Amino acid sequence: MRRVCDRAAALGVRVGAQVGYRDLPGFGRRRIDYELPVLRDEIIYQIGALDGFCRLAGTSVRYVKPHGALYLTASVEPGQASAIVDAVSQYDASLPVLCQPGSVLADCAARAGLRVIAEGFADRWYDHDGRLVPRNRPGALIVDAHAVVAQAVRLATLGEVVADDATVVACPVESLCLHGDTPGATALADLVR
Amino acid sequence: MRRVCDRAAALGVRVGAQVGYRDLPGFGRRRIDYELPVLRDEIIYQIGALDGFCRLAGTSVRYVKPHGALYLTASVEPGQASAIVDAVSQYDASLPVLCQPGSVLADCAARAGLRVIAEGFADRWYDHDGRLVPRNRPGALIVDAHAVVAQAVRLATLGEVVADDATVVACPVESLCLHGDTPGATALADLVR
Amino acid sequence: MRRVCDRAAALGVRVGAQVGYRDLPGFGRRRIDYELPVLRDEIIYQIGALDGFCRLAGTSVRYVKPHGALYLTASVEPGQASAIVDAVSQYDASLPVLCQPGSVLADCAARAGLRVIAEGFADRWYDHDGRLVPRNRPGALIVDAHAVVAQAVRLATLGEVVADDATVVACPVESLCLHGDTPGATALADLVR
Amino acid sequence: MRRVCDRAAALGVRVGAQVGYRDLPGFGRRRIDYELPVLRDEIIYQIGALDGFCRLAGTSVRYVKPHGALYLTASVEPGQASAIVDAVSQYDASLPVLCQPGSVLADCAARAGLRVIAEGFADRWYDHDGRLVPRNRPGALIVDAHAVVAQAVRLATLGEVVADDATVVACPVESLCLHGDTPGATALADLVR
Repeated sequence: MRRVCDRAAALGVRVGAQVGYRDLPGFGRRRIDYELPVLRDEIIYQIGALDGFCRLAGTSVRYVKPHGALYLTASVEPGQASAIVDAVSQYDASLPVLCQPGSVLADCAARAGLRVIAEGFADRWYDHDGRLVPRNRPGALIVDAHAVVAQAVRLATLGEVVADDATVVACPVESLCLHGDTPGATALADLVR
Repeated sequence: MRRVCDRAAALGVRVGAQVGYRDLPGFGRRRIDYELPVLRDEIIYQIGALDGFCRLAGTSVRYVKPHGALYLTASVEPGQASAIVDAVSQYDASLPVLCQPGSVLADCAARAGLRVIAEGFADRWYDHDGRLVPRNRPGALIVDAHAVVAQAVRLATLGEVVADDATVVACPVESLCLHGDTPGATALADLVR
Repeated sequence: MRRVCDRAAALGVRVGAQVGYRDLPGFGRRRIDYELPVLRDEIIYQIGALDGFCRLAGTSVRYVKPHGALYLTASVEPGQASAIVDAVSQYDASLPVLCQPGSVLADCAARAGLRVIAEGFADRWYDHDGRLVPRNRPGALIVDAHAVVAQAVRLATLGEVVADDATVVACPVESLCLHGDTPGATALADLVR
Repeated sequence: MRRVCDRAAALGVRVGAQVGYRDLPGFGRRRIDYELPVLRDEIIYQIGALDGFCRLAGTSVRYVKPHGALYLTASVEPGQASAIVDAVSQYDASLPVLCQPGSVLADCAARAGLRVIAEGFADRWYDHDGRLVPRNRPGALIVDAHAVVAQAVRLATLGEVVADDATVVACPVESLCLHGDTPGATALADLVR
């Protein structure tokens, strides 16, 4: 984490805190029923720890984005969404929250006066409600390079995606996410650019 | 952790970061051979995370003290002592380090220009070199209330302790530690006062 | 764990595997959305590890009981209940499952041909559906010693409890549970006897 | 772990328990000062858990081999070596121990009446005492494919290696280890064969 902050600062890349459940064996990818104040403080802990490294590198955390199952859960559940919003509001209310446009988290953050950055996924399928197909479902990831590039371009230029049932869903985004563990991620990123 | 920071701030108590190995199952009480840069960054991570909560509570981390096996190891090993000193120097060189007077850590911190607060233990036996008897050794803890009070008073007024071989060892201290998990810790603290 | 097995074997006490989520920081007390084969194998892992110690002590695991949030979840959810039942069926189908009478887990285990041991709680409140009031709810634990003894006797002799809304609920049990972390647990156990 | 046991049983491959420190964040690669009975029981726990899966797959654990820093430590320290030997002796004294020929662990296991399988490493440098160069030292791994094959053949046919100071060291082995995380491990294994 330290090295990432140092490099990001050197390259002028903005560092975001990707906050998640404390679940190392599950890599944060399975939903946990936290008591909400515990979840809020867990998130503050993670932002604070990362921010410490950032300050050593002469920068600071610039945005917050939930990770894995917390991302999915906060998209649809007011409770966990509010825990994220409370954490950011208490830690530094000037930090924007990256999340899906139209999600419960986006609404909750906006109502609390936080800035929302709408994010689209180049390499994940959406369902007809504009939600991500969960990662443990077969076909969650788009693996064909051309399809990834096509979705990225469509998201960036038209603000929409083709869902897994072939319907077109509005998805107005300011930021694009491409997962680092998708095969050929770097090459895909170049293609998208 | 959050609640502790809030209460400490409300009571005007200074919060210290008690930093240790990442070893939950062993509660930080067994020595781990860290690569030193990893240990340094682990310590920065812990100070940063705690400092985040402190700032929310209107205060900040005021000193750093190693926990458990890291405390013992840094008392005698220049490598791990320097990892602590580097962490504090990089994070905030105005933070003092609590440690044993005469220890390798105390020397290392002083040489690096950090302020050292010499600490004595009211409820732990010392050996004739002025080091703590390791916690996993039988008789490491002083359990008799009168003996704890006597040692606390001797440390505070004379700057010395009676070691486990009955010799008297110099131990000039500015701070006294009484472990929270010692039976009757609160009552003992009142007695000492 | 080792020592517990050794002592249990020496005393002739039957050892049960109390299996739960892999969630050390949460002590297994918050629900986790496992993929079911992963949960099943997690449970087999825990039974197998405990059984290893039991065999060294000349005994073996004699029953399986879910712990914490897994207990509550398997009482009402067919998915996680079936993961437990699959684990026991695959590991050793002669092992009985301790659970709440009338729960989804009890039904699922019985349908799979496992022996079910119905369990009642002396020191926990029940709701009017015969389910335990979750531990994070205020008033989940019965703390009054007389009330604990009364509930234990009522469960053991009449097979019923008084729920938290004062209704009487049928609860035919073969086994009684008293939590070790309830204040005065040992004295209560003696009283109940 | 489950799937590995199932596949190994299907392929007729013998499953060994590679036992190590409970140190997930450090991947077992940094030495921990365990109390010896705790380390012994940790090892029994790991063998027992793996054996549970093996039995479900119709096989059983066939040998025990220490992992990472435990391997290196038990090569030179009688205390941790004896913890491994005690664990195997208590769990199943017919299980052989894989370790370096001439190591403290090899002696300790032999004296306790356990069968020792001497192991050589195709892709790791040895020092002139016949010990592995620790993994965190630069140049610990042999990365050149030809050099890996040459060392494997020399170990297997002559029972010796060329150390990192160019001396030839005796190393009579019955088993060859090639790390799965060495780049091109599968291709190398084919070449060696």
